[in-house]
Amino acid sequence: MVTPLRSYVSGGWQAPSDEGVPLTDAATGEEVARLSASGIDRAAALAYGRRVGGPALRELTFHQRAAMLKALALHLREHRDELYALSARTGATPADSRIDVDGGIGVLLSYASKGKRELPNDTVLVEGPVEPLGKGGTFAAQHVCTPLRGVAVQINAFNFPVWGPLEKLAPAFLAGMPSLIKPAGQTAYLTARLVELVVESGLLPEGSVQLLCGEAGDLLDHLTEQDLVAFTGSASTAERLRHHPAVTGRSVRFNAEADSLNCAVLGPDARPGTPEFDLYVGQLVTEMTVKAGQKCTAIRRALVPAGLLDAVAEAARERLAAITVGHPAHPDVRMGPLAGLEQREEVRRSLKALLAAAAIVHGDPDRVEVVGADAGRGAFLPPILLRADDPERGEVHEVEAFGPVATLMPYRSADHAVELAARGRGSLVGSVVTADPAFARQVVLGAAPWHGRLLVLNAEDARESTGHGSPLPMLVHGGPGRAGGGEEMGGVRGVLHHMQRTAVQAGPSMLTALTGRWVPGAPRDEGVHPFRKPLRELKVGDTVVAGPRTVTLEDIEHFARFTGDTFYAHMDEEAARANPFFGGRVAHGYLVLSFAAGLFVSPEPGPVLANYGLENLRFLTPTFPGDELTVRLTAKQITPREDADHGEVRWDTEVTNQKGEVVARYDVLTLVAKR
Amino acid sequence: MVTPLRSYVSGGWQAPSDEGVPLTDAATGEEVARLSASGIDRAAALAYGRRVGGPALRELTFHQRAAMLKALALHLREHRDELYALSARTGATPADSRIDVDGGIGVLLSYASKGKRELPNDTVLVEGPVEPLGKGGTFAAQHVCTPLRGVAVQINAFNFPVWGPLEKLAPAFLAGMPSLIKPAGQTAYLTARLVELVVESGLLPEGSVQLLCGEAGDLLDHLTEQDLVAFTGSASTAERLRHHPAVTGRSVRFNAEADSLNCAVLGPDARPGTPEFDLYVGQLVTEMTVKAGQKCTAIRRALVPAGLLDAVAEAARERLAAITVGHPAHPDVRMGPLAGLEQREEVRRSLKALLAAAAIVHGDPDRVEVVGADAGRGAFLPPILLRADDPERGEVHEVEAFGPVATLMPYRSADHAVELAARGRGSLVGSVVTADPAFARQVVLGAAPWHGRLLVLNAEDARESTGHGSPLPMLVHGGPGRAGGGEEMGGVRGVLHHMQRTAVQAGPSMLTALTGRWVPGAPRDEGVHPFRKPLRELKVGDTVVAGPRTVTLEDIEHFARFTGDTFYAHMDEEAARANPFFGGRVAHGYLVLSFAAGLFVSPEPGPVLANYGLENLRFLTPTFPGDELTVRLTAKQITPREDADHGEVRWDTEVTNQKGEVVARYDVLTLVAKR
Repeated sequence: MVTPLRSYVSGGWQAPSDEGVPLTDAATGEEVARLSASGIDRAAALAYGRRVGGPALRELTFHQRAAMLKALALHLREHRDELYALSARTGATPADSRIDVDGGIGVLLSYASKGKRELPNDTVLVEGPVEPLGKGGTFAAQHVCTPLRGVAVQINAFNFPVWGPLEKLAPAFLAGMPSLIKPAGQTAYLTARLVELVVESGLLPEGSVQLLCGEAGDLLDHLTEQDLVAFTGSASTAERLRHHPAVTGRSVRFNAEADSLNCAVLGPDARPGTPEFDLYVGQLVTEMTVKAGQKCTAIRRALVPAGLLDAVAEAARERLAAITVGHPAHPDVRMGPLAGLEQREEVRRSLKALLAAAAIVHGDPDRVEVVGADAGRGAFLPPILLRADDPERGEVHEVEAFGPVATLMPYRSADHAVELAARGRGSLVGSVVTADPAFARQVVLGAAPWHGRLLVLNAEDARESTGHGSPLPMLVHGGPGRAGGGEEMGGVRGVLHHMQRTAVQAGPSMLTALTGRWVPGAPRDEGVHPFRKPLRELKVGDTVVAGPRTVTLEDIEHFARFTGDTFYAHMDEEAARANPFFGGRVAHGYLVLSFAAGLFVSPEPGPVLANYGLENLRFLTPTFPGDELTVRLTAKQITPREDADHGEVRWDTEVTNQKGEVVARYDVLTLVAKR
Repeated sequence: MVTPLRSYVSGGWQAPSDEGVPLTDAATGEEVARLSASGIDRAAALAYGRRVGGPALRELTFHQRAAMLKALALHLREHRDELYALSARTGATPADSRIDVDGGIGVLLSYASKGKRELPNDTVLVEGPVEPLGKGGTFAAQHVCTPLRGVAVQINAFNFPVWGPLEKLAPAFLAGMPSLIKPAGQTAYLTARLVELVVESGLLPEGSVQLLCGEAGDLLDHLTEQDLVAFTGSASTAERLRHHPAVTGRSVRFNAEADSLNCAVLGPDARPGTPEFDLYVGQLVTEMTVKAGQKCTAIRRALVPAGLLDAVAEAARERLAAITVGHPAHPDVRMGPLAGLEQREEVRRSLKALLAAAAIVHGDPDRVEVVGADAGRGAFLPPILLRADDPERGEVHEVEAFGPVATLMPYRSADHAVELAARGRGSLVGSVVTADPAFARQVVLGAAPWHGRLLVLNAEDARESTGHGSPLPMLVHGGPGRAGGGEEMGGVRGVLHHMQRTAVQAGPSMLTALTGRWVPGAPRDEGVHPFRKPLRELKVGDTVVAGPRTVTLEDIEHFARFTGDTFYAHMDEEAARANPFFGGRVAHGYLVLSFAAGLFVSPEPGPVLANYGLENLRFLTPTFPGDELTVRLTAKQITPREDADHGEVRWDTEVTNQKGEVVARYDVLTLVAKR
């Protein structure tokens, strides 16, 4: 007896109050699980996430959360085989599962790495530079980002039951916001097992991940101003949810990623025989058949120069004929079934609409040869390539068959290709296959406003290209209009979608206290030389002031000869006078930096281990022979590492001359031992 | 006979087809203008903006658009007196007009300056670093932002008829998106005159600014996926517009900035006699009376430690008693009338609701002494301070009286203050008046998720503070939930709201062609030394490779003695061996930089005028005595200035050793003459 999937809400696993509806194996039609969320208290789950998960997450720093994501990824990787086996029941071949399972784990790892490298080891994210607001330096502002105090309600699509939840969880978790995962019905058993693995691992704080298996019910009614909705699915469902009174009435952040009619443009240079021609046809066939075309990023519209349409159709037909359809576990199979019979019915309905404007190049919607399974029981369909000789017909730009279906159509010019691309009214991704930079630039810049991602494919990048259909965690995923108007991932950008940005205005010492970063104008503490203080004792504001040191003409000439930098502005008074910025011989910028280091250094071994870099250097006033330099170095930001005995310290550095003018300003980056 | 205001649409001024409704002087009740948009073809206006304004703007670079904004600001400043005179008719005193008129001009100037300093002199905005996507270096991505191809529909509030339209226009214009300005009815005559001045100036491209005076009608029905709506006004109107089927159905970007129940928290340290106590009371009275309290950022909820409530009430009452109400042009008047009689009726209605939970400290809703005007004809109201001894009552957190009205209420602890602040369900701004950093940190970080802006006011910043109620162009303006869930301005952030972000994936040479920036891995052109090429001839990719130069132990010791930088890692073999990163004596990072400059320099006078800075320097491999350094300098980004004979060139700089390891990587910033 197959039991219904349980939800993980309010701190425990809860079974529904009825027996639910059956979920079936895509290839065999066997019942895999049953689905229902009857009796699950959705309002309580949201409240629990806000009360338990949120506070637990907000106590952790970004680096601590990043470390948890990494540990979770490694844990899930150990259960890869089990996830692959369940994934096969959704119709996924091993190659499909790689995208879903390994891809999902990859998102966790990518966010773990970004979190550690690009976010502070702190609970507050300081964004952008300090904005001075008064000439006297007593009033300034700093934007800070803090996690929303609600729950990220993540409504997933059926096609990526592992990757989908994980690509939404990772940025939310890293931001410090708890997730409530609602998988799509058809493949919920795989997401449910994924969440079981997460919960069993004990790696994440309780309340930070919840699972609602089954219908959304009144879930959205209970949203508040601090919750958000991250939706992936059809454009029509996105529209319905966005229209929900709780969403519009409480300004709930609503991010939608909807399947769209993505296009791939073949460049006129890519004639048969070129590598780009083969790349185009190969990519088209891949995008049609991976996940049986059930990818919101798949190519639906193949735009080809009119003169190349026959050649592309012929080459694609040949390759499609070689695709073996069947049970996803069978070794010969290249393409598995759709996720279910309903999905297949919907694809057939859409095909019918498309056939009003297009003819079939390859594939019969009603007949398919199947290997290793019973064609009568599984949701099988062959890859179907259409051809629309009139690309102005509305159907081909509006009707999406969410399966192994694409339509070839001709275009006349780069502008026409851009125009046709835009007829999709907003897409997640487009690709241009060409070796011609001028054509690529015209299509990419023309089509960019309609796309969240664009790929230029050719012999230069083909070997390493991740392909048209693959969203990547470091790149934004989403698109305008029909594609939902949203944006996910994109590295830290995706984290910020879960945080409130606030401009904090205050005096510099108060801003320093609020942000934990030293702000120019705040007090400087000139006690012990700060290079003698280990990281644990160092405080922002700790300062060394050193100098003055006079820069002589001999110094300049000596430095020039020693380094070889005999630029005329340092060596030739007359020529230097003609320079619009100097009016006379000046010291090298690098001489100023070197003398400054000679002034602020504390030579004996101590906690400062290395100067690993320098940022935002500006030379603001020239240094003339005879000028006296003073340097002021102040600890600005202190970032202990979670996994090492040292951390990073950023020092605000200011070099001034005898008139008090700022000669140079920069940040010195050092590694400092904790003790 | 007063004629109706005309709209500026589809390339010309159009009068409405009926006589419209009267707009009256706030103080005298006289008719100022008539308002109607009957017969104005809104769909045609949108189409015109897309067809004429958009393309004209997109041909300009960010710097060219910035220069136009600056010219416009200077033009408007010449017409300041005229705008002030019309502004007085809306009820604004000269001090109020300063905020509206000079504030609006200030936003133009700020965006002009940001555009020149922070955006490229190009039509495409490259955002963030290049993301390498393959280990072989043949596949990478770059996020680019391109202007949306639609119209920015800007729906303004009645209270800032100059600042409101300009703070929306500036970022849209800079982004390259045309604006359609729809002023609120009551004060539309001032916005209409503003747009007349803009049009008459001839400074902006035709079609980049349109004006719809009168009701929105079917305007939103004609929105497409590439248009956006930027709304300022009441929370209820925001909700209605956000719910519009065209908005939800076409994923139209919708940004709302709604008035909210902003709070000001007095710190427990700020007892009577402290500067902070006086600052708090002074700020409260200012926020109540400026613009007669008709500011979406005004203080509505004054949160005060329970023990200080009486003292604050008393001090505020005294100051409020000194406020003279009357005709805005009268020299004694501190507070003018509300914008109109309807506004006053609405305030009185809200007051009635508030009085269920609060008592009056000062002011009579039905009686006011007026100077220089007829109290019976103008929309006058005195400042009204309420006091709610039970701060848990819902009314005081929910009912907004959009006029000179605020409510005092007690809180028990910092956590309680945060909790009460959050009961506003999202605010544009809050302030904390305290000299105690611990209290400030607790309230600011606790309240941040509910606020778009937070001000900490005390003796440190009071002299320069721009105040609780003033949004600033470099800071985000907007807030979650009740405040609309939107975000405007914030410098370049506000520009990005008008652009589509697209991740472009390609090989490095293609990415270079697409973005105009040299991407690592793209070809380098080692012809003429690039320092010999003027800006106009220089191309991205132009490269000088120089070296190798051997770094000897003598060099290191000499540099140490010369600069004074005798850090042990350079001088003491044994101590250096104990350093976890070096394992032996190493050269100074600054020595590496200096030698690199000595290698790549071209000493004779030429187009390179100065090295003005350096960015993103990382020392990646230590340099040991005997190592041989080679430097590779490649023109990465070329930015000619619009208003000078030179421009900026950013050079990708890579120093490698004899093993090919990268020793240092950084960007050198130079000024280069155009010829």
